[in-house]
Amino acid sequence: MTTPIAGRGFTSALHIVLVEPEIHWNTGNVGRTCLAAGAALHLVRPLGFSLAENAVRRAGLDYWPAVAPTVWESWPALEAALPGIGEPYFFSADAELSYWDVPYPLPVSLIFGGESQGLPAGLRRRFAPRLVRVPMQRDSVRSLNLSTTVALAIYEVLRQRAAR
Amino acid sequence: MTTPIAGRGFTSALHIVLVEPEIHWNTGNVGRTCLAAGAALHLVRPLGFSLAENAVRRAGLDYWPAVAPTVWESWPALEAALPGIGEPYFFSADAELSYWDVPYPLPVSLIFGGESQGLPAGLRRRFAPRLVRVPMQRDSVRSLNLSTTVALAIYEVLRQRAAR
Repeated sequence: MTTPIAGRGFTSALHIVLVEPEIHWNTGNVGRTCLAAGAALHLVRPLGFSLAENAVRRAGLDYWPAVAPTVWESWPALEAALPGIGEPYFFSADAELSYWDVPYPLPVSLIFGGESQGLPAGLRRRFAPRLVRVPMQRDSVRSLNLSTTVALAIYEVLRQRAAR
Repeated sequence: MTTPIAGRGFTSALHIVLVEPEIHWNTGNVGRTCLAAGAALHLVRPLGFSLAENAVRRAGLDYWPAVAPTVWESWPALEAALPGIGEPYFFSADAELSYWDVPYPLPVSLIFGGESQGLPAGLRRRFAPRLVRVPMQRDSVRSLNLSTTVALAIYEVLRQRAAR
């Protein structure tokens, strides 16, 4: 069920999980960044868009077949498999811990909610000690774009691994 | 002409320059990230889209008025003003230096080319010692999305400044 990535050097064992993403383009751009970083992408249903080949092609995601995401029927299905995937960190704009201050383990799973609501409140409560945020001036803008947040998280893990 | 940002704490004196950007959405998302980071956005004409208010509104960029980018008629106009803006670094997928390995000065200008071609070859030649790249697996994907690359660059500067 999982898609471990082996032998890709400094980028191996990095898993990105989008929980109920809503917008095709954002998931496509996350897939592009995962390819560039050698990360594995997981999508948790329900999705706000179709993964059918013609829909993907219409969205202009030429590289999508190479992304080959693992699709999970629900959060509980993914959560049951997490111990075999990677220690989880959950991204939430309301978290106290900055994403710069976590020494990310190997392997690791970085988990993100959908565009409108972020991670479900129940998940945020249950995993409170594992919530991290990207610092921002919240008086100027409510949040970053989802695909932007994911890229920042991915490249912080890569930076730490390259620096070891 | 320039838009220095004063008194915004750890994010001050960070300038983002898009040279001849082509796609409305990418520039819009860069603007959103600039707002979140307290960075100033500069756009160098020609642009591949309209900055007219109704076009911006159609693109769904609610926060665009707050971005208030500085628009330059041409690269030479911006280059003449650079000494008063910030020491420049140029992002190019072909650069040798990783963007993690630059100690970014204060103030700094991070400079990016358009989506299809990147920075003009003439600029890449003239500023060769100042070219930096975001590491990626080039066998998997040719490049990252422009707004993704800009966000990574912005947040590396913020990370370094927060760590000082």
